[in-house]
Amino acid sequence: MIGLSSYVGVMESEINFAEEQQPLSPQANSWTNKQDQKPKVFGGFVLVHAGAGYHSESKAKEYKHVCKRACQRAVEQLKAGVLAVEAVAAALVELEDSPFTNAGMGSNLNLSGEIECDASIMDGKSLHYGAVGAISGIKNPVLVANRLLSEAQKGKLSAGRIPPCFLVGRGAHDWALSHGIPSWPSEKMATKFSLSAYRRNKRKMELAEKMEPGQTKRRRQSSENENGSGCLDTVGAVVVDLEGNVAAAVSSGGLAMKHSGRVGQAAHYGCGCWAENGCNLNTYSTAVSTSGCGEHLIRTMLARECSSAMQTEDAHRALLETMQNKFISSPFLASEDRVLGGVIVLRCCRCVETQPSQNIQGILVEFLWSHTTESMCVGYMSAQDSKARTHISRLPPGTVPGQSLAIEGGVCRLMSVAERSAETTIHASYCNPSLKPCF
Amino acid sequence: MIGLSSYVGVMESEINFAEEQQPLSPQANSWTNKQDQKPKVFGGFVLVHAGAGYHSESKAKEYKHVCKRACQRAVEQLKAGVLAVEAVAAALVELEDSPFTNAGMGSNLNLSGEIECDASIMDGKSLHYGAVGAISGIKNPVLVANRLLSEAQKGKLSAGRIPPCFLVGRGAHDWALSHGIPSWPSEKMATKFSLSAYRRNKRKMELAEKMEPGQTKRRRQSSENENGSGCLDTVGAVVVDLEGNVAAAVSSGGLAMKHSGRVGQAAHYGCGCWAENGCNLNTYSTAVSTSGCGEHLIRTMLARECSSAMQTEDAHRALLETMQNKFISSPFLASEDRVLGGVIVLRCCRCVETQPSQNIQGILVEFLWSHTTESMCVGYMSAQDSKARTHISRLPPGTVPGQSLAIEGGVCRLMSVAERSAETTIHASYCNPSLKPCF
Repeated sequence: MIGLSSYVGVMESEINFAEEQQPLSPQANSWTNKQDQKPKVFGGFVLVHAGAGYHSESKAKEYKHVCKRACQRAVEQLKAGVLAVEAVAAALVELEDSPFTNAGMGSNLNLSGEIECDASIMDGKSLHYGAVGAISGIKNPVLVANRLLSEAQKGKLSAGRIPPCFLVGRGAHDWALSHGIPSWPSEKMATKFSLSAYRRNKRKMELAEKMEPGQTKRRRQSSENENGSGCLDTVGAVVVDLEGNVAAAVSSGGLAMKHSGRVGQAAHYGCGCWAENGCNLNTYSTAVSTSGCGEHLIRTMLARECSSAMQTEDAHRALLETMQNKFISSPFLASEDRVLGGVIVLRCCRCVETQPSQNIQGILVEFLWSHTTESMCVGYMSAQDSKARTHISRLPPGTVPGQSLAIEGGVCRLMSVAERSAETTIHASYCNPSLKPCF
Repeated sequence: MIGLSSYVGVMESEINFAEEQQPLSPQANSWTNKQDQKPKVFGGFVLVHAGAGYHSESKAKEYKHVCKRACQRAVEQLKAGVLAVEAVAAALVELEDSPFTNAGMGSNLNLSGEIECDASIMDGKSLHYGAVGAISGIKNPVLVANRLLSEAQKGKLSAGRIPPCFLVGRGAHDWALSHGIPSWPSEKMATKFSLSAYRRNKRKMELAEKMEPGQTKRRRQSSENENGSGCLDTVGAVVVDLEGNVAAAVSSGGLAMKHSGRVGQAAHYGCGCWAENGCNLNTYSTAVSTSGCGEHLIRTMLARECSSAMQTEDAHRALLETMQNKFISSPFLASEDRVLGGVIVLRCCRCVETQPSQNIQGILVEFLWSHTTESMCVGYMSAQDSKARTHISRLPPGTVPGQSLAIEGGVCRLMSVAERSAETTIHASYCNPSLKPCF
């Protein structure tokens, strides 16, 4: 039996639509009907993460604070009427700008003491994708990824050349500059914390290599030291706008002391993030963003796996099974002793409530997070909420990171003007997949 | 109705096993039985491609010749008893070394007149993967990818660091050097042909930009010029050894006049190549290598899609449906007027033939290629063949590249020592997916 500790909470807040006093006309309710979209109703929902890794109690406040700000930034954009993809980029900029996260400012330093970042973004509406890998000297890598996405949407370049969706290294940096994204001094990207972590890690490496001169021995003995620091805290976000479009993004400074040129899951298609609007084949729109050990997330293509799994009825069970079978117990990671990662997932579909006089339409948003790392910091907010909710999810006491998982989530109904309320129900359960599942 | 033009051919050749004169003992037949593998029987099958793109009649001989040599290199390795992954790397080295292919030596030049290569390799046995992107100054990018794969298989680095599976740019180059792979002068990578193609493309670009100064206009009008040159001919190979292990690899110089730092499908997990040994869940071992427009192959994750599809009974039909539904008609490429790519696929399973006195065991190899480009050059050979067969597959006359496809393939039985013969049956059909399928 999986050990379960569940809690349920209910949050209600007022929707503050501009046309609150108008009667429900076909126009007012027409955001489900793209042709007659006047007056427009703007809004949506955002879920962000500040990484799956280890979040010390002492820094919990900072992590929560940045998640809150990121949610607010996305909601500001949603209220201004932008599409999900722009709102998710805005959330990412806030997360990258925090010196506490391992993305943009304050990213981990690599072996050579440099900062090289990965980021990607996907638009569930156009299914376009943009990514940068091992990019230096750019304050917000996600903005380069987003610009690649939007440039690719414009069609072919001169002489029939196909625009790139993935750029790396110096070439990515130069492309950003030629598209109006300014260079940022690399020394301003490092923080006191990232520099001292680099020095500490370097000493640890030198000591390990001195103590274990044999390659084989060194490789075997060192497996215990992993996950000792908060070095995995990639950031990301998933968004749905009131047209039902989803988008996802992810950004990372990568593993501490990585080799120069190493690209992690944050720049890998299908691995770092995924977003796909519902269509004839798929009932649900889905958006996913991952965090954790890049190599584990790449080899299991976790973002896309989670997205695909979300088309079955029970989202909670689908994510639990995916994290267990396609991640922790994945044949692709059979040789790994600890499989480290986390994921935020959003899925949504249109919902209708029949009342005596009319049908009330809306979007039912289910949002979940799950991780095998010690902790994961998340935040979420609907455009109808006055402030974001944040939470540091932790593995249950006594469970082993990389072999167990936590899974939590909630439901948020974004109703049309008729109901003028948003209702959020939180349900959660912690699971230890080393025990036999209870379903 | 799909227009079909089928042909059937039969090839038979002698198996020349070292222990040919020995009676069939449990040991001799034990390659299906890993515990008692003496005396060992070495061999297998290789399928290579020299790209999906346009192969002029004038250069057909050269393309076929390099495919032949690549097959022979892989077969030499298979006969020497190496695993599939080493044999596939050997085939790739031969393909990269040809000045006629767009990989390694003779790669397309990018916008800045430099050569930056992508390559990746996957081992179906360990499910490990190695890749390099936008790497310069290395003669055989596939050898760096292969070294990344083998280093990752050794486990963690000092201080618990996880070894990288994907390196790009300068970092990838430096890692190669530090692992004994020598640097190669960039000027020796370019050929007379690649340099003249660069000058020609540059003039074409300048002319296009002069004639169409408006960005929007330029983007629209230029879509006709694509696919006019042999600029898509990425190379790749898939191999099965006699233990039933599969492996796949791919290598590319990328699109001509690409932006510096652009990484194509050849370095993208799930997009450039895929290899997965059969297991409890999967009846068949599968290996796939792709070629064509990188962005199209990335966004459709074509290698992995083809691999997944191969678990159904009819391989030919599965590949046809995948190329139609998941590539040409993919919702991910809805905005593209022409979807350009090609794929070689191998799937195999153990087979048993009951004869009066004994069971004869072997491996049934089904191999296919399909492309939407004007042509695709392939070669294949079993370790029992005296020489490789090569073929330039072309779209049927009157069909439109990027909207139609060709599909061909064959079957090869690799039988155990008892039968001492290999039999190959070729069957093929060309299909126009714009018409209604005939099944």
